[in-house]
This record gives sequence, C-alpha cells and structure tokens, in this order.
Amino acid sequence: MSRVRLRDLGIKIGRFQTGNHNSITDISGVKVGHVTLSYNNEDGHAIRTGVTAILPHADSLFEEKVLGSSYVINGFGKTVGTIQLQELGVIESPIMLTNTLSVPAVLDGTIRYLLRQNPQIGDTTGTVNVIVGECNDGYLNDIRGMHVAPEHAIQAIQNAESGIVEEGCVGAGTGMSCLGYKGGIGTSSRVASFGDNLYTVGALVVSNFGEKKDLRIPGGDFSKGKESKEKMPDGSIMIVLATDAPLNERQLQRLAKRAAFGLSRTGSYASQGSGDIVIAFSTAHRIPHKLPPNQECNTFHLLREDGELISQLFEMAVDTVEEAIWNSICKATTTEGNKGKVKEEVPYEILMGLKGWNN
Amino acid sequence: MSRVRLRDLGIKIGRFQTGNHNSITDISGVKVGHVTLSYNNEDGHAIRTGVTAILPHADSLFEEKVLGSSYVINGFGKTVGTIQLQELGVIESPIMLTNTLSVPAVLDGTIRYLLRQNPQIGDTTGTVNVIVGECNDGYLNDIRGMHVAPEHAIQAIQNAESGIVEEGCVGAGTGMSCLGYKGGIGTSSRVASFGDNLYTVGALVVSNFGEKKDLRIPGGDFSKGKESKEKMPDGSIMIVLATDAPLNERQLQRLAKRAAFGLSRTGSYASQGSGDIVIAFSTAHRIPHKLPPNQECNTFHLLREDGELISQLFEMAVDTVEEAIWNSICKATTTEGNKGKVKEEVPYEILMGLKGWNN
Amino acid sequence: MSRVRLRDLGIKIGRFQTGNHNSITDISGVKVGHVTLSYNNEDGHAIRTGVTAILPHADSLFEEKVLGSSYVINGFGKTVGTIQLQELGVIESPIMLTNTLSVPAVLDGTIRYLLRQNPQIGDTTGTVNVIVGECNDGYLNDIRGMHVAPEHAIQAIQNAESGIVEEGCVGAGTGMSCLGYKGGIGTSSRVASFGDNLYTVGALVVSNFGEKKDLRIPGGDFSKGKESKEKMPDGSIMIVLATDAPLNERQLQRLAKRAAFGLSRTGSYASQGSGDIVIAFSTAHRIPHKLPPNQECNTFHLLREDGELISQLFEMAVDTVEEAIWNSICKATTTEGNKGKVKEEVPYEILMGLKGWNN
Amino acid sequence: MSRVRLRDLGIKIGRFQTGNHNSITDISGVKVGHVTLSYNNEDGHAIRTGVTAILPHADSLFEEKVLGSSYVINGFGKTVGTIQLQELGVIESPIMLTNTLSVPAVLDGTIRYLLRQNPQIGDTTGTVNVIVGECNDGYLNDIRGMHVAPEHAIQAIQNAESGIVEEGCVGAGTGMSCLGYKGGIGTSSRVASFGDNLYTVGALVVSNFGEKKDLRIPGGDFSKGKESKEKMPDGSIMIVLATDAPLNERQLQRLAKRAAFGLSRTGSYASQGSGDIVIAFSTAHRIPHKLPPNQECNTFHLLREDGELISQLFEMAVDTVEEAIWNSICKATTTEGNKGKVKEEVPYEILMGLKGWNN
Repeated sequence: MSRVRLRDLGIKIGRFQTGNHNSITDISGVKVGHVTLSYNNEDGHAIRTGVTAILPHADSLFEEKVLGSSYVINGFGKTVGTIQLQELGVIESPIMLTNTLSVPAVLDGTIRYLLRQNPQIGDTTGTVNVIVGECNDGYLNDIRGMHVAPEHAIQAIQNAESGIVEEGCVGAGTGMSCLGYKGGIGTSSRVASFGDNLYTVGALVVSNFGEKKDLRIPGGDFSKGKESKEKMPDGSIMIVLATDAPLNERQLQRLAKRAAFGLSRTGSYASQGSGDIVIAFSTAHRIPHKLPPNQECNTFHLLREDGELISQLFEMAVDTVEEAIWNSICKATTTEGNKGKVKEEVPYEILMGLKGWNN
Repeated sequence: MSRVRLRDLGIKIGRFQTGNHNSITDISGVKVGHVTLSYNNEDGHAIRTGVTAILPHADSLFEEKVLGSSYVINGFGKTVGTIQLQELGVIESPIMLTNTLSVPAVLDGTIRYLLRQNPQIGDTTGTVNVIVGECNDGYLNDIRGMHVAPEHAIQAIQNAESGIVEEGCVGAGTGMSCLGYKGGIGTSSRVASFGDNLYTVGALVVSNFGEKKDLRIPGGDFSKGKESKEKMPDGSIMIVLATDAPLNERQLQRLAKRAAFGLSRTGSYASQGSGDIVIAFSTAHRIPHKLPPNQECNTFHLLREDGELISQLFEMAVDTVEEAIWNSICKATTTEGNKGKVKEEVPYEILMGLKGWNN
Repeated sequence: MSRVRLRDLGIKIGRFQTGNHNSITDISGVKVGHVTLSYNNEDGHAIRTGVTAILPHADSLFEEKVLGSSYVINGFGKTVGTIQLQELGVIESPIMLTNTLSVPAVLDGTIRYLLRQNPQIGDTTGTVNVIVGECNDGYLNDIRGMHVAPEHAIQAIQNAESGIVEEGCVGAGTGMSCLGYKGGIGTSSRVASFGDNLYTVGALVVSNFGEKKDLRIPGGDFSKGKESKEKMPDGSIMIVLATDAPLNERQLQRLAKRAAFGLSRTGSYASQGSGDIVIAFSTAHRIPHKLPPNQECNTFHLLREDGELISQLFEMAVDTVEEAIWNSICKATTTEGNKGKVKEEVPYEILMGLKGWNN
Repeated sequence: MSRVRLRDLGIKIGRFQTGNHNSITDISGVKVGHVTLSYNNEDGHAIRTGVTAILPHADSLFEEKVLGSSYVINGFGKTVGTIQLQELGVIESPIMLTNTLSVPAVLDGTIRYLLRQNPQIGDTTGTVNVIVGECNDGYLNDIRGMHVAPEHAIQAIQNAESGIVEEGCVGAGTGMSCLGYKGGIGTSSRVASFGDNLYTVGALVVSNFGEKKDLRIPGGDFSKGKESKEKMPDGSIMIVLATDAPLNERQLQRLAKRAAFGLSRTGSYASQGSGDIVIAFSTAHRIPHKLPPNQECNTFHLLREDGELISQLFEMAVDTVEEAIWNSICKATTTEGNKGKVKEEVPYEILMGLKGWNN
C-alpha cells in the first residue's frame, strides 16, 4: 500500500492554509531534485543513501544570488558553506543535502557544476560558496563506503523540478531514521495574506533524529516497550526554509531560529549528537554577482518589522517545520539496510493522536 | 480559593522525577527572593510590579563566582550583563528580574548591594558585572511610573531563601500576562541519576508571552471566542536555568538553548516583540575572584559529553522549562491593573487537556 | 598651553581626507554632548567623570530609528542595549557613554528623557531600548561614589551639538587613562568618493586602555623606565562609528569589526580585563517606529558589496579609529585624581615617531 | 640566493622570546606537513598549489581530541568544520589547508585517512569532523583545474614532522600572494614564563591578502608607483594558533580573536573579499573520544583568567601572528604562474623599515 501524508490522515497542524502542494516548491521558482542510491553491492553492503538538491530559482544562482541565513540549533554537524553565508547574507549555489561522509563528493560535484555553468568563476572573478548539509544515515547505509559520487550531486541538481516533491525514502532521506521509525524527506508549506499580498513559507527536512520514547503525540503511549535495543547513533535534522516574503538576511535568521520551535513539537530536545541545522532563504530579491559599474546601491523592499506581519511568518515557519517532519515519517517506508538492520515505517494509528490538537 | 500547581491537577510533564520542591531551589544553595509592589497610588495609578532575585549561592558571588551562560531566543529585550557573561563564562551577581523600565533601578540597587558587600570593588580591584532581566508588564502595571526603587532590589536579595518558591503574581511576575491569562513567576525541577550521582536541573520563569489562541493543549479548544479585543504589547519570557551538574560555560549555553524547546511546547513561537532570554548557571564549581598568587590554574571536573548523560540533562531542561511556565499561570490569580484592565487567571479545566500526554 | 590634535603635530594616519572637523559630527546630523564632573567633594573624594551623548540625528530617535550594529572586541564590559540592537538592527536612543558604575544612572536618565519625549512609550506602544557604554575610570575618579545622576544624562543629551567636538578630559573621558598617559574622548573622520557620492566615516572613542610599554610608535622607545609602578585596573575602550554611507545592519557589523584593526595599530592587544566594544550606525535611512497601516514594506538602498566600495569604507573605519585614539591622548591634559593619583598628558615628542609612516 | 626569515634581517617583533625554531612546532607534539604541486601540465596550465597539514599531536586525533576554537575575522571564506568545533570545543582531525576549490578533495582525503585509522568511525561510533581551511590562489594557480587530489591530503598528513617548518612557496602557500608580493606559508612562536611554567604560543599562516599600498612599514614608501595594474582577486588569510598553555575552548576563542590584531599590524584591514579565519587549539589536554563507562567527568586544569597571565598569552599571540605573516613573504620566492602572471618576492630593503619599532 502506498504511504500517505499527514493531512491525508485528517490531521492539520496550525491555523494557516497550506500552499498548492503543501510543499517548499509552493514558493514560486523553487525546485527540488533527488538522486536515490538504494542497492546492495557485490561486497554485500547495503547502500541506502542519496542526494537532494534545493534550487532557490532555476537560473544561475551564482549570477543572481538570493538573500539567506543559517542557524545552528545543535552543532554536532558538518554542514558546509555557512561562514560565508553569515558574512554576506547571500546564497549562490543550490542547497545540497546528503549523508555525512559524502559531503566532500557532493561539494566537489556541485563546485564542478557551478564552474561549468559559470566560466568566470576562478578566472575573472572569485570563487563560489556552496552549501551542503548532511545527516548520518550509517544505521541503514554503508556510510563508510562513501558511495555518493560527484556526479550524483550534479544529477540531483539536474533532476530538480517544481510541483510535487517526493518524500520519505528518497534522495538524502533514503537511509535516515526518525523518532524510532523510518525517516527521510518531508516538506510542507503555509500561505497567508500580508496586507495586499499573499506570502508563502515552505520547509523541507531530512529527518534523522530521536527515539520512539521521544514521539510527542497526545493520547495513549503507542511506543512503550517497542524501543529497539540496539543503540542508534544520535541523529540529526537538516531544515531548509524558503519564503517569497521580502525578508533580509537578519530577518531570515529570525525565521530560521523558529525552526527549533517546530522541531520541539515533534518530540526532539536536540540531543547531544544531533546536528540540527537550518538554512533559510527568500526569493523576493535577486542580488546580481556584479552590479553595473555605475550603480552604487542595491534596492531592497523589506517586510515591515514593527508588528504582526513578521510574527505571522514566524508562526507559519513553526507549523511548516512541524508538519514537514511528520510528513517525512508518514511517507517513509520500512527499509532493510546494512547488516540486516531494519527501520520500520511508522504505523498511522500512532499518529492519530495528533488529531487531538485543538485547531 | 487558593491556586494550585500543575501537578496538583494530576498533570505531569516528561519522564523524570521532580526535586523535593519541584523548584529551582532544589539545586542546593540556590535561593529566591521577591519584592512585590501591588497597590494603587494617590494619582490613581495601579502599581503591579516587583523584583525577583535568584542567588546561585548564599555567599559573596563576587568573591566566589559560578560558571554561567546566556542564550537569546528572541532579542526584543533589555537584559543587562550578558556581554561579560559570554566573554568570561562566570556570574558574579544575583540574577535580578523586574519590569523593563525598572532595569536601571534594579541595576543600581544591586550594584550598591555588591559595593557594600565587597569594599574592594572599584577600589583595589575592578568593577562588577550585574545581570538584570526584564519583561514588559505595562498592560497591568503603570510601567511609565518607574515605581521600582534601588532599595527594592536590595530587599529582594535579602528576602532570598531556599525551599518553596512563591509563584504566580509575586515579585517580577506581579503584573505579567501569559497565553492570554494572568502569568507571572513559575518554577520546576527534575532530578536524575548520572552514574553514581544525582543531578538536578531547575528552571524559574517570568512568563509574559502569548495569546489564548497560542495555548498548546491537546483536546477541545477552550479559548476560541474569548480573546481579548484589546491589543496587548508583545510579551516576553525570562528563563533562568540552574543545575548542580558540573557543566562549563559552553555546556551551559547548550543547556540554555534547550529552553526554547520547552517554551515552544506551551505554544510560543517567539513573536516579533518578545524578549525571550535565558540565563543558565551551574553550582558545581566556585571560581574565586582572585586565585592565590602562586596558583596558576583552576581545576574543573566537567560532565563527560560523549554520550547520553548530557542529553539527559537537555531533556530535563526542556521539561522543567515547560512545567515552570504552566506553573506560572496555574498559580497566578485574576488581577485588575492600570486603567481598569484585567487579566483573568486560567481556568483549570483548560489545562486538563495536558493530561492527554502519553507519559 | 592648550593641547593640540594629532594633525596639528603634522602627523596623518592613512591615505584618505578627513571631513571638515575631522570629527564624528562630520556625518550630517550627528551631534555630541558632554557633561563633565570634575571637582573634589567635601569628603575629600576626587570626582573625575562624566557623560557623553552621541545623537545619530536631532529628531526623535524612537520615532525615527537608524540602522545600527555592535561588535564585542573583548567583552569585559557592561555595555547595555546590544541584545535588542543585534536582534532588530536599529538604534532608537542616543548612544550614551559614562563610567562603569554609573551605567544605571545614565540608563535611568536616558529612559526618563525618552519617556518625556515620547508619551506613547509604555502606554500605547512597547518600551524603548537604550544603549549605554562605559569604561572604568576608577584610577582617577571616585567611582564607588556613583556621582553621576540621571539628570547628567539628560543634560548631556541636551548639550549635544554639531561641529567641533571637545576632546580629551571631557564628558565620559574626564577620568580615563590610555597607554600609560591621560586618555579620554577622541574623534576623527574620513571622506571619500563612492561613485557619484561622497561618504563619510567618523569615530568617537573613550580611550582607557593600555600601558606605556604598549604604545606602538616607530622610532626610539620613549617610554622605557617610566612605567608607573602602581598597578592600573585593566582598561577598556568604547568606540562609536558613524557613517552616512547606506549600510544595513550586517554591513555595519562588518564595519564595526574593523575598529579592532585601528585599535591594534595604537598598541592594544585587547588585554584580559579590557571591555572593548563597538557601536556602529548609519544615518542613511530612518526607520519609522510604526509604518503607515497600509504600507507593508520598508525600502532600503544599500551600498553594493561586490567590490571595492565597501572595502574602502573598511579602510576608512580603521584609520579613523586609530586617529580618534591618538586624538584622545593628544588633547587630554595632566589630571590629578582620587587619592592624589596623577595621570600625565602624553609628551608630544613621543608621538612624533608616528611621522615615520609612509603615507 | 636563498631567502631568509624576518629575524635574519635583524628585525624583531614584540618583547617576548621565540621558541627554539620560532615555529608552531615549538609547541611540543605539533607537526606540520606539506605537499607542493608546482608544475606546468600538458594543457599549458600552471599548477601552483598544494596542501599543508597541521597535526596537534602525532596520535589518533579522533581518539584523543584537543580543545579548540575558531574565529571568523572576515567570512568571505569556505573553511569547513567550524560548526562542530564551536559546538563541542574539540578538534578531532588534522587541520588542513589548501586552495579554495580543492576543499572537497582535501576533505575527502582526510576523511578517508581517518576512516582507515579509525575503523570504528561510521560503524560502532558516529562520524568525524574534519577542518579544512583555504585561500584563493587563482592568480598564479590554475584553480579551476582542481588539481589537488584526495591522496595529496593524505600525503601531507604523512609528511608532517616536528622541528623546522618549510615556509614561503610550499604546501598550501605555493600559489598565494600577500601585500602585493609573493606570499605563502609563514610561522613564528613566542615563549614566556607563567609562574613556574613556560608556555609557548605558535602561529602558522597561509598569507594571501593585501596590496603593496597596504604594507604597513615605518619609513619611506617603497611601494608607490609599483602597484600591479592587474586587478587581483581579494585575498585571504588562514591563521592557525597553537599553544601548550592550558586554555579551554572559550579562552582559545579569546586567543583566536587576537589574531586580528597581529594581522592589522602588517597592513590588512580585512577587505571585503578576504576570508580571514582563525583556528586555535591547545595541546594541554587530550579528550578521549569515549571515557571509560564508569567515569562521569573529565578533569581540566585551566589557566587562571583573573590577571596578567592570560593577557600575556594574548600579546604573544598578536606578535606571533604578525611575525608569521612577515616570515611568509620573507621566505617566498618570485613565482611565475598561470597565463604568465608573476608575483615577485618582496625586496628585503622594503622590510628594513620594520627595524624602526622600538622594541
């Protein structure tokens, strides 16, 4: 039987409407691409991993950057590219997600992709800053085998499309585990009116944290006595937040910080070994790599911050992160991985307690 | 009828035991003192405010500092003293809480208290760094009147005692509002074993955030249609975390970050105008202001960070902050304030939905 | 004999032109006011302290905020107001400077000034965030006496004027010591063309750091053997940077970080007990406290960051901070303070080595 | 003629003694290894690049971590590994340096080296955090060719030795440019007594910043009129600070911040496109990856922070960074690179002005 999303179970999170696809791709121009590696090789290793690429827009991101920020909820993680992102407030590459030990391969492939797309990089202009996030899928995946190749990163970028985003055991989520069950990719979105405009906030997560005991669901305790005896490595979550609301880099960091609030509501407390990292961007402005020589300033129209409009965005971000996490486990399927280890898909009846919310 | 705490309603938060008093004072040596200002003056203004002092220990904090850290969840706040706390990792004053516009009075009084206690400050040694946190009680309190005096700060320090902490409309919490109801002071604690040791985590909050619609309680929506028409100023929360676990300043900041997780679970999303600030300290070490001249090093025994022990502390911090917030509204009583404005105490039946948690 | 500034000695710092007054007030609209307390009281204490106020513009700063940022070079300091500044990126009060133990008095006075100027604060709108910086003048001043009163803060604001800024032993600089000599207030500015525009960067410092041995001046060592035997408390420096270049809060923080480069060139290495803190602002935009109800966005024209223009600003900031520090000791005069302690003015011949720079 | 170091020119920086080799390897156990790639390939490209590895000690860094920290002076850089370093305060890999576009290759090689050395990584324990820093050598090197391979990283680690460190056009410094001349690797150290102990601070830099006009040398202007017409990409500097003084992660960050002070004194103002990043570590403690099961705490003896001892370390760090930079250009030799571009070695007479310092 095919797996469904949280809303297909009749469960809603929060008071806002979702976008068309209840997905990060509801932000116009945003595309998502996956490469899924799921096979057993001749050495008897199970490869359960992949790459996910999030493109803030479909043009050259190096030539037309977007405003962005990052926030570290818990820094037991190896995300690449945040130093320059924090200094300059712009994202100039696709946002790439993979397993921890494949960061160099994905970084390499993405750089090569950008060098081909932009012959001026490293020649008549400087270098390029690539963002790669990761979680440790070593429970199910033969992570030491470093099976992701640079080409997989390029392919994930080329696979990117708008519309419905595949969720669950796909791309970077292929081998992930969440709240004691199979995790993976999840996404969600919210739309609301801001004066005369409609703005959307979307989240995409790679969920890989927590144990059954942490599941935060009203109602009976469906998880007691079922906890796996085997010690999992502490998990992580990568959270990407996108919006078309006109936020600057500082406002985007404020938005990114709210991701922790959505994460908390699913049961996480950001355990010691969890790399919980947020990347946020806005598609409202494009910042050219070089302005025309005679132009001294960039112009930005930024959301007023003196009242409820930005608070509404914060609340939308909290809800969309929470629902993206639930979607990631709703859509994931039971997976047998390396050394015969298995992560089961979450039974839907466990999630039904979430109907208890008074929204 | 006297108001009760969350546990008196049969509701538990999380899987850990509480300390003896379910209070921040369960950390040995920690004392809390209040000064409550609740009266109407001759000008017809309602004064509903006060000061709360938290003493990490009862001796001279300047002479024997404790390790500490701070974390800004949302920085729409005027807390004083965090620059030096972050640079040096030590707390050398009581942690003082009051209303926003009374920060200078409380800062002044606390400095005077410390100058008297330590004649060497500003004479044979340097100055002293005082920590004062605040929330805006201007809905019920005549905050523009700046009715707190330096002496009130000194008195709050002198009132500090161990054992049961008064909660609700007391001290800095006198005029605060939370989740659409009357807020104020709340506290809670957790105890667990760490190898051969028992360690305690305690939280004390001044709750002053959120509207009824934000209340995050499983079950029916008790709040619909009851929201006050009058626009409240965006609220805030001050959170103080204490532990006797041997954490250093970096580990304490990690602990402080988890306060956001507990806050989120009550319904906050850290709205725009909310000053949500955390101060954390450990009583496990005392750092002398001056080491003996021939002693080159300080010795610290710090909790191992390579596994579950520190994660357990994180989870305890999340739970204790959540319960401290619930306690703050459980114990608060309906209050009429300035210009006839009223904040009602939360009806207990609304909180009963919290029994729905599967712990 | 009246004391002169560095340029009066024929010494220039860096390759840029200064503004008209070589002062922070060369940024149009910026005003500076001092209150100097220099007297011996009946108890035989020497009061050598004061207050300095820097106004980014002459209108209501609460109603029309300016973009700003702060940077902590070394956080052994008690500056107030930076948490909200970093969260929101705006300054909404005069920037106040005083001695360490008078922060509460100056904070109190400035709040009262702003409450009077803005009757809506704490009534129909929220509270106000005030910035107060400090250095420890306890070597010359009876700092434990806490002789600054709230009224002195109000008076310093009211004294503020454009044009020539008094330097040396004035305002917050009255009792300060720098590089083994008498320190105090210093200021400087730089102007350069940015495309079709001229932009100015100005600095104002309260210098209170370092010993004679640290003086970083090419040529013979004028300081050997003259070091005071008496141990000084570790000093500090407050640095305020202003510009009319259109920078946002992130760009202003980048500018603020360059203050450390100017500070270093005078000989500081930011010693342990030094509170070295920078506040930076731009007058290019005014952000209204409340936008009109139907206006959803603010518009900003921000300096392009893709090339040399912003680097030029960085270099101007470095030079202007260095020269402001030299001016602070050039203009300061020998001062006898508390308990008969004396700080001598720097002999000009010592500074002559600075002519050795190849600019 | 062979190139010499700054001290061989009779020039000293600061008041402290150097260590035996005036090198980062004066900290006992620290080793440095280079792989230099300097050849023209069949496509007519000039490869002028390499890898430098700094080993805090010679044993398994994963099994026995050292305390560390990082500081971003200007974040136009792509250094990898700092998120986890800041969260946990430990370094568990060699610190690797290379060119900007070879970060993935060096990251990949270093991970493979550590996987081989530690079969438990990604199997019975979590993953490993690798630190790779970079500068852009694209002026002289065919950086788009991405000529560094993972094996070069492994080889650099294996080449690491104590004693004299090769400087100038070697390892990661092969293709770098500094202050308008040929830059590269430089190192220096300082030793001083701290009570009964001698402690050493050492720096190693890859210098790649600045133009001739920025050179900060007292005396005549040797650089005027000689500036290259061709626009260089904005440069960068990677600074690694090591000490055997017992500092914790917070104290190490304080030390790292002082690197900006040394950098400033050579003429840098941290221009817009400069990635100026500092990594600092102490060899005084080793933190095991896993403590024995029954051991709850780690013990640390940390340098007292209440007086001059830590200030002395700060000053040593400033001086050692400055001298390491001067050494990097002293030892570099004229290099012809890609597309016939040339960077000349600095003429020693230009540096002679540094004798003007009064030490």
